[in-house]
Amino acid sequence: MSEPQSPEPALIIQGDSPTGTRDEDAADGIQHSHRMLSFSDALLSIIATVMILPVTHTEISPEQFDKSIQKLLATRIAVYLMTFLIVTVAWAAHTRLFQVVGKIDDTLALLNLACMMTITFLPFTFSLMVTFPEVPLGIFLFCMCVIAIGAVQALVVVYAFHFPHLLHPQIEHSAHRGLYRQHILGIVLRGPALCFVAAGFSLFFYPLSYLLMATVIFLPYVSKASSWCKGRLVGPQEPPAHSVEFFTFDLHEPLSKERVEAFSDGVYAIVATLLILDICEDNVPDSKDVKEKFHGSLVAALSEYGPHFLAYFGSFATVGLLWFAHHSLFLHIRKATQSMGLLNTLSLAFVGGLPLAYQQTSAFAQQPQQELESVRVSCAIIFFASIFQFAIWTTALLHEGETLQPSARFGGREHAFMFAKLALYPCVSLLAFASTCFLSRFSAAIFHLTQIAVPFAFLLLRLLVRLALAPLHALQGLSLPAHRSEGSEDDARAPLLPSAY
Amino acid sequence: MSEPQSPEPALIIQGDSPTGTRDEDAADGIQHSHRMLSFSDALLSIIATVMILPVTHTEISPEQFDKSIQKLLATRIAVYLMTFLIVTVAWAAHTRLFQVVGKIDDTLALLNLACMMTITFLPFTFSLMVTFPEVPLGIFLFCMCVIAIGAVQALVVVYAFHFPHLLHPQIEHSAHRGLYRQHILGIVLRGPALCFVAAGFSLFFYPLSYLLMATVIFLPYVSKASSWCKGRLVGPQEPPAHSVEFFTFDLHEPLSKERVEAFSDGVYAIVATLLILDICEDNVPDSKDVKEKFHGSLVAALSEYGPHFLAYFGSFATVGLLWFAHHSLFLHIRKATQSMGLLNTLSLAFVGGLPLAYQQTSAFAQQPQQELESVRVSCAIIFFASIFQFAIWTTALLHEGETLQPSARFGGREHAFMFAKLALYPCVSLLAFASTCFLSRFSAAIFHLTQIAVPFAFLLLRLLVRLALAPLHALQGLSLPAHRSEGSEDDARAPLLPSAY
Repeated sequence: MSEPQSPEPALIIQGDSPTGTRDEDAADGIQHSHRMLSFSDALLSIIATVMILPVTHTEISPEQFDKSIQKLLATRIAVYLMTFLIVTVAWAAHTRLFQVVGKIDDTLALLNLACMMTITFLPFTFSLMVTFPEVPLGIFLFCMCVIAIGAVQALVVVYAFHFPHLLHPQIEHSAHRGLYRQHILGIVLRGPALCFVAAGFSLFFYPLSYLLMATVIFLPYVSKASSWCKGRLVGPQEPPAHSVEFFTFDLHEPLSKERVEAFSDGVYAIVATLLILDICEDNVPDSKDVKEKFHGSLVAALSEYGPHFLAYFGSFATVGLLWFAHHSLFLHIRKATQSMGLLNTLSLAFVGGLPLAYQQTSAFAQQPQQELESVRVSCAIIFFASIFQFAIWTTALLHEGETLQPSARFGGREHAFMFAKLALYPCVSLLAFASTCFLSRFSAAIFHLTQIAVPFAFLLLRLLVRLALAPLHALQGLSLPAHRSEGSEDDARAPLLPSAY
Repeated sequence: MSEPQSPEPALIIQGDSPTGTRDEDAADGIQHSHRMLSFSDALLSIIATVMILPVTHTEISPEQFDKSIQKLLATRIAVYLMTFLIVTVAWAAHTRLFQVVGKIDDTLALLNLACMMTITFLPFTFSLMVTFPEVPLGIFLFCMCVIAIGAVQALVVVYAFHFPHLLHPQIEHSAHRGLYRQHILGIVLRGPALCFVAAGFSLFFYPLSYLLMATVIFLPYVSKASSWCKGRLVGPQEPPAHSVEFFTFDLHEPLSKERVEAFSDGVYAIVATLLILDICEDNVPDSKDVKEKFHGSLVAALSEYGPHFLAYFGSFATVGLLWFAHHSLFLHIRKATQSMGLLNTLSLAFVGGLPLAYQQTSAFAQQPQQELESVRVSCAIIFFASIFQFAIWTTALLHEGETLQPSARFGGREHAFMFAKLALYPCVSLLAFASTCFLSRFSAAIFHLTQIAVPFAFLLLRLLVRLALAPLHALQGLSLPAHRSEGSEDDARAPLLPSAY
């Protein structure tokens, strides 16, 4: 059979992938890893966030808010936080691994799925651990999971180095390939080795196991933070000449910006979706109730749930706009450093808590006493989620030459506007929090209406920033003509802008 | 302040985006829409799938499986299917819209978020509609949502045509821009107009509203199917000369392959994650129970849940491997046509049903009578999910010149292997279904072990295909030397391979 002519379609809108080299590879069963990585990102971000559902499903009626409920709630929040933390650590390790392994084939894709399966099992081990802290089975299972993940990742490394065309080209053609392999295996197996010891101790002296587990989870963060502090204090050290290329894969390489974005998108998307799930499960009135209580009037029955819908739209607007701020921020970021990645994780952990805020403000909408409380919790969650976004921006400004696009740097055209955008949510939530302290009664309804009104603030923001900058530009135009995008006097003005809103 | 020097980092692994033109655009607040589209894909795929959760949360104890529970279950399944259908229609419309609008700015990003918010509210209107079919409020709210979505999309179109640099370059520079706008507005507002009429009728004669609603949902599919049939019967018509460019945006353009992949990834990821959620919520034993029933032995308490864990790993393996097959398939696809998109949607709808299958097989694991039933349901769901994937492949082969990479076409090197990969799941599930009919007792445990064993079948598959093809290649090598990638005799052999497994 002869090769059929491939007719060019009249108008292809969105880019087909370049077929040339890709097809060559596909013929050997070798694939670019892009789609597998997005799938892994989606899976990991969802698993990190979805553990907030058991927290929001905890039924609390205000009368019987006793010890056992408090304990259950605390347990579930602890599971959520631990899951979020460990999944982000696993995600970072996954990112690093697949920066080394540039292409995949079927075996690697299947190994990756095995790795994902083990990671999705981690939340269960946490549930066990937190429910039965004195029984060492939970920690034993956790350690087994980590060892399994490490084993699969080590297999991936060995396999990829056995078929070097799967590696990133720079390593494939490096003379030190053997050294690389040693080094990467070391990184991949460090955690599992600690967990192996912990699993051993869990059988006769489990408190030590908890200590070792904490080391595994926090070590990456602690080592990063300490090396950062050291770098600040001593100044950047010159690494030994032969190992420059070598250690680039460990601590100093930037995170893949694309994957940070994909992971964040997943978290925001699942949080936005969990909200409607609650609405659909709980807020459809029972047909018996409608007949008996409301004389068959569905509208009357639904108006009971009015505050829930307001809370839903308010929360969705907040999640959407936090995503929007994140999106604008990363649009101006060239490269994400490790510390920015860490701040992003913290911000996302609070975004994941938003369904809890929604639950709080909608469940307690009737009780005026606890209404203030729940509005405060919501404000706090939103404040922390947005302030960590702001911190990403501040950190990026520290090394703006490397990390930011020119237009967003000090004096760039978008600088002041970005500042205002990112400062909007911290300011609004702080204001709302403050008003709950001064006013004796701050209605949840007002809070949600504020949430819904914020998008318009975003739309007005550009206008306001332009207006505020106009006189400065005019002054500047008088003194030195035609220097549009480098007006350094704007900097001092920029921090004042958010309060103009 | 002078522009700081941007030091080149020693080794950047994964591609930073090309900064040149992008930064120019970012400075004007204009952005490539890539990330917003992935976020929308993630959101829509999750919302389409997550409505299966209320279905699996329906508590059915085998004793009291009475009418009211059956009705509740049927209601929730109906909500799931309707949501899935309407969200995929909305997603397709969104895809088409943002094939026309190539870039976004802040206003468009916010409008898109508003559109997403309205879409996430649709499941609630379905819940109302299905719970109170005789009250017209549900359909009225549904129509309002569709009208709101249409209004937002029309705003997007008007805004983008007002700032033509946001449009796809081909339209931006077209002479018929006005005509395009008319046409696209027509497409966007067609559904909402119908819904407006339906909303009117819902106030005094609601059955007609349901009819109109069904038209809105099914019209795209019906019109596609009928035009396809017509095309088959009459042969492709020559469109009038001046409108070739014009109608390309409506019916004949291919779907964006990237977005089809992103949407599918989202569905697979959320399905894989919903499984562990059930495990964590339901399978952590109560500490009182452990003390009283199991004399404090956590291991004994957990072994009660043994079948659940087996079911979890089996289901995860199935979801993962269906994703893997999908991934392999789309690796060889160059361009996704509308009919392939439709088949993909159908496949995904069944994938979304997998948590139900998991629930069935794990909940009824103890009752041998219903065990067979539930294994059958699972087999049916898996069979349909995989057979529609196979149908995508068959459809692609019909126009292989346009739709497939050369290596996957008839006679290509990967052709036989792809065939075997995609036929594996239909065959295995059919076999399992058949064995439930012949055997009086087919244990759910065996079923789950089969599920876990399938990955190894995938690994062996390549070997088996190679072995089966080797004698043919040898024969071929004797008759005509050196024709590696175009062995046309392989074709006849390929369909036989799956049964070799």
